[in-house]
Amino acid sequence: MTDDSSAQRSGGGEGASLTAADVARLVGGRLVGGDGGRVVRRVAPLHRAGAEELTFLAAAKYADEFRDTRAAIVLVPPALAETPGAPDAVRIVVDKPHEALLKVLPVLYAAPPRAPGIDPTARLGRGVRIGDDVTVEAYVVIGAGAVLGDRAWVESHSAVGAGVELGEDAHVYPGVTLYPGTSLGRRVAVHSGARLGSDGFGYVFGEGAHRKIPHVGRCIVEDDVEIGANTTIDRGSVDDTVIGAGTKIDNLVHIGHNCHIGKLCLIMAQVGVAGSTVVEDGAILAGQAGVGGHLRIGRGARIAAQAGVMGDVPAGATYGGYPARPHKESLRAHAAMFKIADMMKRLERLLAREDAT
Amino acid sequence: MTDDSSAQRSGGGEGASLTAADVARLVGGRLVGGDGGRVVRRVAPLHRAGAEELTFLAAAKYADEFRDTRAAIVLVPPALAETPGAPDAVRIVVDKPHEALLKVLPVLYAAPPRAPGIDPTARLGRGVRIGDDVTVEAYVVIGAGAVLGDRAWVESHSAVGAGVELGEDAHVYPGVTLYPGTSLGRRVAVHSGARLGSDGFGYVFGEGAHRKIPHVGRCIVEDDVEIGANTTIDRGSVDDTVIGAGTKIDNLVHIGHNCHIGKLCLIMAQVGVAGSTVVEDGAILAGQAGVGGHLRIGRGARIAAQAGVMGDVPAGATYGGYPARPHKESLRAHAAMFKIADMMKRLERLLAREDAT
Amino acid sequence: MTDDSSAQRSGGGEGASLTAADVARLVGGRLVGGDGGRVVRRVAPLHRAGAEELTFLAAAKYADEFRDTRAAIVLVPPALAETPGAPDAVRIVVDKPHEALLKVLPVLYAAPPRAPGIDPTARLGRGVRIGDDVTVEAYVVIGAGAVLGDRAWVESHSAVGAGVELGEDAHVYPGVTLYPGTSLGRRVAVHSGARLGSDGFGYVFGEGAHRKIPHVGRCIVEDDVEIGANTTIDRGSVDDTVIGAGTKIDNLVHIGHNCHIGKLCLIMAQVGVAGSTVVEDGAILAGQAGVGGHLRIGRGARIAAQAGVMGDVPAGATYGGYPARPHKESLRAHAAMFKIADMMKRLERLLAREDAT
Repeated sequence: MTDDSSAQRSGGGEGASLTAADVARLVGGRLVGGDGGRVVRRVAPLHRAGAEELTFLAAAKYADEFRDTRAAIVLVPPALAETPGAPDAVRIVVDKPHEALLKVLPVLYAAPPRAPGIDPTARLGRGVRIGDDVTVEAYVVIGAGAVLGDRAWVESHSAVGAGVELGEDAHVYPGVTLYPGTSLGRRVAVHSGARLGSDGFGYVFGEGAHRKIPHVGRCIVEDDVEIGANTTIDRGSVDDTVIGAGTKIDNLVHIGHNCHIGKLCLIMAQVGVAGSTVVEDGAILAGQAGVGGHLRIGRGARIAAQAGVMGDVPAGATYGGYPARPHKESLRAHAAMFKIADMMKRLERLLAREDAT
Repeated sequence: MTDDSSAQRSGGGEGASLTAADVARLVGGRLVGGDGGRVVRRVAPLHRAGAEELTFLAAAKYADEFRDTRAAIVLVPPALAETPGAPDAVRIVVDKPHEALLKVLPVLYAAPPRAPGIDPTARLGRGVRIGDDVTVEAYVVIGAGAVLGDRAWVESHSAVGAGVELGEDAHVYPGVTLYPGTSLGRRVAVHSGARLGSDGFGYVFGEGAHRKIPHVGRCIVEDDVEIGANTTIDRGSVDDTVIGAGTKIDNLVHIGHNCHIGKLCLIMAQVGVAGSTVVEDGAILAGQAGVGGHLRIGRGARIAAQAGVMGDVPAGATYGGYPARPHKESLRAHAAMFKIADMMKRLERLLAREDAT
Repeated sequence: MTDDSSAQRSGGGEGASLTAADVARLVGGRLVGGDGGRVVRRVAPLHRAGAEELTFLAAAKYADEFRDTRAAIVLVPPALAETPGAPDAVRIVVDKPHEALLKVLPVLYAAPPRAPGIDPTARLGRGVRIGDDVTVEAYVVIGAGAVLGDRAWVESHSAVGAGVELGEDAHVYPGVTLYPGTSLGRRVAVHSGARLGSDGFGYVFGEGAHRKIPHVGRCIVEDDVEIGANTTIDRGSVDDTVIGAGTKIDNLVHIGHNCHIGKLCLIMAQVGVAGSTVVEDGAILAGQAGVGGHLRIGRGARIAAQAGVMGDVPAGATYGGYPARPHKESLRAHAAMFKIADMMKRLERLLAREDAT
């Protein structure tokens, strides 16, 4: 959100460019029948790519758009290399065009620039420690004793609680709240509006009221985690809440108190994980899935979208439906339900006849 | 959120008033047996409306509350015109009392006033362009090169990224983040805490890590769109994310990268739409529904609450359940499931007997 | 989020300590075979508790961790009093160890301290009334005519709309928005990013557009309510939205316009309640459940996680599934669906044979 970022990431390359030969070399692809000197400055989708723009054909279903594209360079997978169309383009054949973009985009689009320095409107509490080359933007508030590692970047309007620690190269987008008791590892990115370390939902009913259990556990986010916009992760009650290294969490996700999420997990938008649940390394939770409290999702398990998990899930399994079961069984049972609706009248007649005999 | 807004929208009319005859004329209704000079200054629900207040009878189920209401004027539909009650009231018969409020409310309740001007605490980056009569409130941060159209209104604590464009009369409530790459059309309203243009959830696994695909597409919001509180809409990866003109989006909705939402759609609270999905004009997505990625929801289709859509939906169709199917089939299959549970013992006996023969 | 809070709630007791005899007296427990003078300063989970730390055994499934814990004091329930392990610990037998923490934690961990005063960067509109001993932190914006009761605490970056009222001891965490028309009772806590009093989702289609119904109702939050991070509660359209005293609401919940939520309800993460629905006292809505509009959830009813409620629910009932039905029936029907999938081939054969006869 610093001054020039959009000129870069959205406006395109400010002069950066690649030739077709450069691109082929960069992505490990093969240039077929065309001018290796053709220049591109931006990447665009098939339907609006033009001169100086590179595009890609991801699947056969986009053949119509491919036919008419005015792109200058197209990346095509081997199986679709001969697809007719793209009359103005140099073709580069590469195994996975979409993944190849990972190599092209950072060259054409500079990352948002970051101007180190502490904005004069930033409010720092007593004993805050600031590493080298840190950026703290306008109207940030940082509580006493917080620690910002080298090159940490806190964007505008964020509230960093007392004693919170940010690792080197951590990046906090605008309007984030890190409650006291939170720590972020190195290269962690927290998107706008995420709330980390808020009190968990823990009450004991008595004396006519839901009495709150004070939360004194921490919220620990390990290295290389990315957390989506408006996601909430509660601090632990007595234990800690932990998000393992390299895990990626999408927008509007809820992670309850004391959860331990493993390393390299993918947790998609609007997933909810209730308190004290363990999600082992490499598990994938698809959009809007819900996982109950005090459960264990095994290593590498996959939970289908909207699944409602009410028991442990074995490592490597794929579960879906509500209550979640092995996904194939769940889809099969669902299909049976539709079939049985069609058979219902005949079944009722049959049972009536049986009863009569 | 300017100084006097609540005195208006919540406190009521500060002197504005309507007579029963005014109301009848305004809503195209018919005054029955009463004093056309009766005055109202506010609108209230049946149970707490009193002297100087107008209320309405929306359905027969509210007949009890209608009987006892102390309102001064009541709007009643033709079919319920003779409902006993409302002893102090003048009655106005009108086809759709609830819709008639659209005409009455703006007269009695002034819209929140807006004081044009740039608050001295607002931070504007280099090259920001400001139209006529714009309001920028306290502690707003606007990045370099952003453009605010005439009469645009940015409330407190919002972060407007570099290069972002706001159309004429756009209204951004407090604490909103517009990432670089976002543009808002004319008369767009973005409620508090919404995050537009955040990076999508796109990673490629390799070299032991989920490697992030840089997002360089935009987040384009067309004219007359309203976006609810704490909703998130990701920017495109290479293509753009687009919200069509006149579409209304409720709170806590997630729209993934590259989605194209059509015009005049209604998307209710907590809906999630995964990446690259097309929702055609006039479609309605009810609360908590989820739509998978790379799908197409046809023009005017309706998706029931909590539906889980895993395939394309034809234009005009109503789908529900998980995986979503035509809603009637889905409800019928669900009913069959309950019936079959009741029949289960007899079915098992029958099959056992068959096997024995 | 004031300067020293983490030193307290997360760092532990800054000198506060309890002996085993103190703890036994405090929780009404029985000290068994150990040194009543043993001192603890913090509470920790079994796996990382050490000298000077108290822990607890909540259930038999944690016997392994209990065996190895290095805690100084352990709370154990009568049934597990003889569980082997915890070699360094003094044991205290108490009926419900987890609830006993309610008495121990506040002694060892001071509540986050609060420094009364209005930060010089806080912006107060005309006619704002401030009670005794109030805290308003940095970059807070308060609209004209708002009222803050004694000891109210508004943390950084929050926006308090014109005319909003905060009761005594109300606590608004960082980055909250209270729209005009909102009022908070005494001791209400609103977590970071919550949006209260935003416009409801109300439109009438006509003249080629979704025309917005102005919202003039209020958002009333009664005493002792706690509201989670990033939750949204809309104001009423004509009627009010009301959250009853003592109700607790988790993160990312959506409550629609005109809802009346009773007293002492529990509403868990990501629940959605559509407009004009009544939830009576003591009802519990589990995570991700959805409730349609204009419904009534009876007193003390329980709604299972992910349930989709499409009709009224009787008092005291437990409902689940979609469309929600009595939870036991719903689970039984679901089980039948899986059974029927297994029986399908035989059923089809049977019907074919019947048809042939």
